[in-house]
Amino acid sequence: MSTFGTIFKVTTYGESHCRSVGCIVDGIPPNMSLTEADIQPQLTRRRPGQSKLTTPRNEKDKVEIQSGTEFGKTLGTPIGMLIKNEDQRPHDYTEMDIYPRPSHADYTYLSKYGVKASSGGGRSSARETIGRVAAGAIAEKFLKQVNDVEIVAFVSSVGDCSIDRSIKNPKFIELLKTITRDRVDESGPIRCPDLELGAKMTKIVEDCKDNHDSIGGVVTCVIRNVPIGLGEPAFDKLEAQLAHAMMSIPATKGFEIGSGFEGTTIRGSQHNDPFIKKENGKLGTVTNNSGGIQGGISNGEDIYFSVAFKPPATISQNQGTASYDGEDGVLLSRGRHDPNVVPRAIPIVEAMAALVLADTLLIQKARESTFGVVY
Amino acid sequence: MSTFGTIFKVTTYGESHCRSVGCIVDGIPPNMSLTEADIQPQLTRRRPGQSKLTTPRNEKDKVEIQSGTEFGKTLGTPIGMLIKNEDQRPHDYTEMDIYPRPSHADYTYLSKYGVKASSGGGRSSARETIGRVAAGAIAEKFLKQVNDVEIVAFVSSVGDCSIDRSIKNPKFIELLKTITRDRVDESGPIRCPDLELGAKMTKIVEDCKDNHDSIGGVVTCVIRNVPIGLGEPAFDKLEAQLAHAMMSIPATKGFEIGSGFEGTTIRGSQHNDPFIKKENGKLGTVTNNSGGIQGGISNGEDIYFSVAFKPPATISQNQGTASYDGEDGVLLSRGRHDPNVVPRAIPIVEAMAALVLADTLLIQKARESTFGVVY
Amino acid sequence: MSTFGTIFKVTTYGESHCRSVGCIVDGIPPNMSLTEADIQPQLTRRRPGQSKLTTPRNEKDKVEIQSGTEFGKTLGTPIGMLIKNEDQRPHDYTEMDIYPRPSHADYTYLSKYGVKASSGGGRSSARETIGRVAAGAIAEKFLKQVNDVEIVAFVSSVGDCSIDRSIKNPKFIELLKTITRDRVDESGPIRCPDLELGAKMTKIVEDCKDNHDSIGGVVTCVIRNVPIGLGEPAFDKLEAQLAHAMMSIPATKGFEIGSGFEGTTIRGSQHNDPFIKKENGKLGTVTNNSGGIQGGISNGEDIYFSVAFKPPATISQNQGTASYDGEDGVLLSRGRHDPNVVPRAIPIVEAMAALVLADTLLIQKARESTFGVVY
Amino acid sequence: MSTFGTIFKVTTYGESHCRSVGCIVDGIPPNMSLTEADIQPQLTRRRPGQSKLTTPRNEKDKVEIQSGTEFGKTLGTPIGMLIKNEDQRPHDYTEMDIYPRPSHADYTYLSKYGVKASSGGGRSSARETIGRVAAGAIAEKFLKQVNDVEIVAFVSSVGDCSIDRSIKNPKFIELLKTITRDRVDESGPIRCPDLELGAKMTKIVEDCKDNHDSIGGVVTCVIRNVPIGLGEPAFDKLEAQLAHAMMSIPATKGFEIGSGFEGTTIRGSQHNDPFIKKENGKLGTVTNNSGGIQGGISNGEDIYFSVAFKPPATISQNQGTASYDGEDGVLLSRGRHDPNVVPRAIPIVEAMAALVLADTLLIQKARESTFGVVY
Repeated sequence: MSTFGTIFKVTTYGESHCRSVGCIVDGIPPNMSLTEADIQPQLTRRRPGQSKLTTPRNEKDKVEIQSGTEFGKTLGTPIGMLIKNEDQRPHDYTEMDIYPRPSHADYTYLSKYGVKASSGGGRSSARETIGRVAAGAIAEKFLKQVNDVEIVAFVSSVGDCSIDRSIKNPKFIELLKTITRDRVDESGPIRCPDLELGAKMTKIVEDCKDNHDSIGGVVTCVIRNVPIGLGEPAFDKLEAQLAHAMMSIPATKGFEIGSGFEGTTIRGSQHNDPFIKKENGKLGTVTNNSGGIQGGISNGEDIYFSVAFKPPATISQNQGTASYDGEDGVLLSRGRHDPNVVPRAIPIVEAMAALVLADTLLIQKARESTFGVVY
Repeated sequence: MSTFGTIFKVTTYGESHCRSVGCIVDGIPPNMSLTEADIQPQLTRRRPGQSKLTTPRNEKDKVEIQSGTEFGKTLGTPIGMLIKNEDQRPHDYTEMDIYPRPSHADYTYLSKYGVKASSGGGRSSARETIGRVAAGAIAEKFLKQVNDVEIVAFVSSVGDCSIDRSIKNPKFIELLKTITRDRVDESGPIRCPDLELGAKMTKIVEDCKDNHDSIGGVVTCVIRNVPIGLGEPAFDKLEAQLAHAMMSIPATKGFEIGSGFEGTTIRGSQHNDPFIKKENGKLGTVTNNSGGIQGGISNGEDIYFSVAFKPPATISQNQGTASYDGEDGVLLSRGRHDPNVVPRAIPIVEAMAALVLADTLLIQKARESTFGVVY
Repeated sequence: MSTFGTIFKVTTYGESHCRSVGCIVDGIPPNMSLTEADIQPQLTRRRPGQSKLTTPRNEKDKVEIQSGTEFGKTLGTPIGMLIKNEDQRPHDYTEMDIYPRPSHADYTYLSKYGVKASSGGGRSSARETIGRVAAGAIAEKFLKQVNDVEIVAFVSSVGDCSIDRSIKNPKFIELLKTITRDRVDESGPIRCPDLELGAKMTKIVEDCKDNHDSIGGVVTCVIRNVPIGLGEPAFDKLEAQLAHAMMSIPATKGFEIGSGFEGTTIRGSQHNDPFIKKENGKLGTVTNNSGGIQGGISNGEDIYFSVAFKPPATISQNQGTASYDGEDGVLLSRGRHDPNVVPRAIPIVEAMAALVLADTLLIQKARESTFGVVY
Repeated sequence: MSTFGTIFKVTTYGESHCRSVGCIVDGIPPNMSLTEADIQPQLTRRRPGQSKLTTPRNEKDKVEIQSGTEFGKTLGTPIGMLIKNEDQRPHDYTEMDIYPRPSHADYTYLSKYGVKASSGGGRSSARETIGRVAAGAIAEKFLKQVNDVEIVAFVSSVGDCSIDRSIKNPKFIELLKTITRDRVDESGPIRCPDLELGAKMTKIVEDCKDNHDSIGGVVTCVIRNVPIGLGEPAFDKLEAQLAHAMMSIPATKGFEIGSGFEGTTIRGSQHNDPFIKKENGKLGTVTNNSGGIQGGISNGEDIYFSVAFKPPATISQNQGTASYDGEDGVLLSRGRHDPNVVPRAIPIVEAMAALVLADTLLIQKARESTFGVVY
């Protein structure tokens, strides 16, 4: 449904053409300093209209905290947040009255709900992700304060132009260790830290735009300073929760953690991460093919994963398809849309990662609270 | 935690060296014929000791229904199921008292719980999956009766020997349409429907076994006759729930649905699945790069996805690593273990898919029940 | 936490002195006509400042639907709703900086969250219930359309002035069968359908007001045309869910259903409700001591229950108590408050009842959808 | 459904005439010493056949831990527990094939599930509560170790013979402070600490038995040494969770906490509990009309509440009623049944209280873990 998390819990509302989008974040620890200024930056990073690479839809996306804070501190009560839909255009998309857009949610929403929204697949709108990003910003602040957790996502591929994400590529391993959010943003609108590749990716996106086409890409994300012990055995392994979170982002088609699909080709003797004593006296691993999680539980190493995004479905060129009534025809979609979503997906991926981490951290804290008890 | 699902809900218990493993399945529709004979086949397919490719641990894995049925019919009440751990050997794994196994859950379980089980990472044992398979068999029977749903998983790669899973490979697309569980089982213990590749995969596994090493692989799964409209927008998209389910299976490192990571490299104009009127009068799609899901909701086409399994962590060769105390040393693991898990993962993947489908189907049925109401 | 329900789910936010209060309602069936006009009446019934019996705090409590509807119809997506806090006075309650109000939530909130809000027990404010009433109005409309469900609550006692709620009192049984919301409202601000008793109750409340004191009371609620089969065995019996819902309303101290506490004194041979064939051909019961629920499941008879509300804790007279620091002293509370809450609790009780019914109805619809299947 | 709790979570299975009943308890803190000997006593207290006051059904009700412990310590993983149904008699109750028992769950179960179990309302059997008691015993041990929490329930009324539970009765207030489980058990099978009243209650029950009738009663429960801060604002107030838990026990009709229904008749100036500095330096209250909870959150005072149980529905005398087909007739129920359930309900009430407390305690521990963080 529209609620995510067990203890640190977010519920979102809103679609493309309604008054506002927003969320309620429940379970936020009390006494944490929090104002809109903590939340706005990630919303701004997510915002459309930032460059010629993204949709010209112009939304200020200014968050307004409704509740749950007083004098700049959290009360521990739910935080209501609201972001107005200022640039509503409910009458675009007219041909969509006749044709469901191929690979879009128009047809499945109609089938599921028995009702057609003027914006087609209502909640499948990218605007639904605004509430997630707002909630994620709060989760991130919490994680930062508690354990100095750092979450950095970046574009690792667009089309067939890709950073070599092999676990055998030392440059990639080094990138995971050192990449910062500042460096990602400094790389320009494409948000790929490899500037040379980024330039190529930009070209691909621009070419798609010129040709009224679209292209997908991959976002890679690394989380540092993760406390040991997060995640639950069996159904709620940390990687399962991360996969759920990431695959709930619109347009995603794949998820891999640590060595991922490449890891299936490597023998155990090479793939296993041997233990070693670290400077802090704790055990760590020499390599990190596990991606920071073993048996579903964080081991204190960096967590890293990649998420595949398909090419956006809405393209401004003729597409042969069938109408809702089953008549063959040609659809020429209009309206605003991105030729490529991965740069804007960066803060969404970071937000969803933060939500998972904050929730699992609080659950583990409950358990740890009993460690000192003598039974 | 140990519970999965909202309406069709399974809770499991058990680890490697306890009296029994089992589960409680709640929310099963009443009046469905059900006996142990409906459940045992998938448990038997999951069972170790079936061939020289798997661990010699010998468990009969015979399911005993405790409740929830009478005269061979479900009552609608929870079904308790129990499978005895007949072949307990709590004193194996002695070196594990000193060394956490690299890439295994020993260290993270100790960190999480502050307690060391004789079997290391207790619930990370493959025996935890027995309860899932038992529950999944019930879900599958339900889905079969309601909509003739078919779920077939098969091994699509072992090591670097792989079926070409490209969406541009017509043979693969054809395989997805036609593969049956019988054909998978007839292909032998490796469970790869391409017999030639299967023979190579078997060689790879045998080579690993001979060298006290291990190797990973990929399981691909297709679900046919899926009702339109399953899955929820936002956080509980159908692919998100499937990803969660699959990545909760031990040893998984990646998940992709439909075009997956390959889809990121294809332009929208090629990737989009045009609509077409089908023989049954409903809309379908010409291609199926979406993998049967659009906007998080099933569109009636086949759902297909692949799951990456890493090489098993426990290998019977010397591994340089550190002890729990941080001392460098060499671990030689003993005990029973598989050089490769993918053939045995087949029924687990099918079970988890069935659990997701049964739950989302029931939720959608609740919604559809209101369609006829005139407001 | 702040979320209630499984399929029909409401999440609320907001406390006394923040920008707005509101809620997100998820799981609302699509294609139901819905505008603010469907929701406002119950909010208005809950609103303070309606008579001299209630707090003079003046709030318009005007609901604004943010999402989830289009052209006056629900989309099936979450409905965000917002009600502005127009009359904020964050600087009242100054003595509360020193003294926790006796029997109020000031002290427990401070203990729970480690932080003191200017409004004391933030979410314990009656304004938190606004979101519930807004959500409940939607649930009620849904129930009305699906099964003509009627929910009517009324004041059955204030102080020691009480309608005789004995199951042996034929007048009370008749009242349950015939009472309408119109008749409740026509009885005046006290909302007691027995006008004579209502006049006495009004006197009691006025006397309390004059003496800077407060008094409690009982709300009785009846639900008619409940479909058979709602509620779940074991933990989620329908009466358990209703009890949960009612006891989550601020200031409640007790709940009884059907014969309630009186039922403990009656022998089974008298208490049992014999079955009889009804005009519609279905089984009904001659008496209804069960209160419409047997074994946790609705039996089609009227559901009725009563909820006890304690006297409001905040009173404008001197109270000997201790300060946060443990110093003895005298607290004279200021600010706006009700001498009695039961008349305003009416729409809240109705709302919570509607939320429980809508959720259990949808869950049962999922189950029933499988009844026709031949297994 | 059949799962209760958020972090400390129990799922039960089983009905009257199946192989076994049992439960899975998830979220139990690790490293707690636990064997069957910790669980059996409460199961034995719940067991039928203990005296002439209860059903002669003879069950040993011996618990068998299946998982989650090793060497007598919890692992932190789910604990599966099983209790065999040794005395199955699936062919009793033959007239029930024709007549639904008045005020029993036979008819509602049939309506809900569309299927008739040989034991009538399957899960409404008192045997369903065995899993709860087993789980509750573990929760109790945990609470005892963490905060020396004591939970004592006792019979406070049978029929019209009742301990005066008025908050104005100093003897009752004293009883709540001093009652122990030992004293309850020493009072004999009726479990009423007032021996004189207990003798009268016993007579009432015996008289019912002789006359093939049944009678209800009230169980009162007190919880001491409750940590401050348990329970959540809004929907999950501690009293709401307790009410849910208690009203989910079969045959319950009412719940009241603290001053309960009596509290509605007392003015606020008398009802409010003034604060006072306690010997431990913390704030306490002079009186405890709140019953240990303010604003939904525990305040550190004793929590006490009462639960009403109706007379058991199954009685061995002729009852005029209608058959499933709507034909008028006379039902003479056979089989084993209690003339009164309250003495046996004692450990069930204690178990459900423990489950609520353990869950809310762990959730609050998560929150408190962040109190030291400087934001």
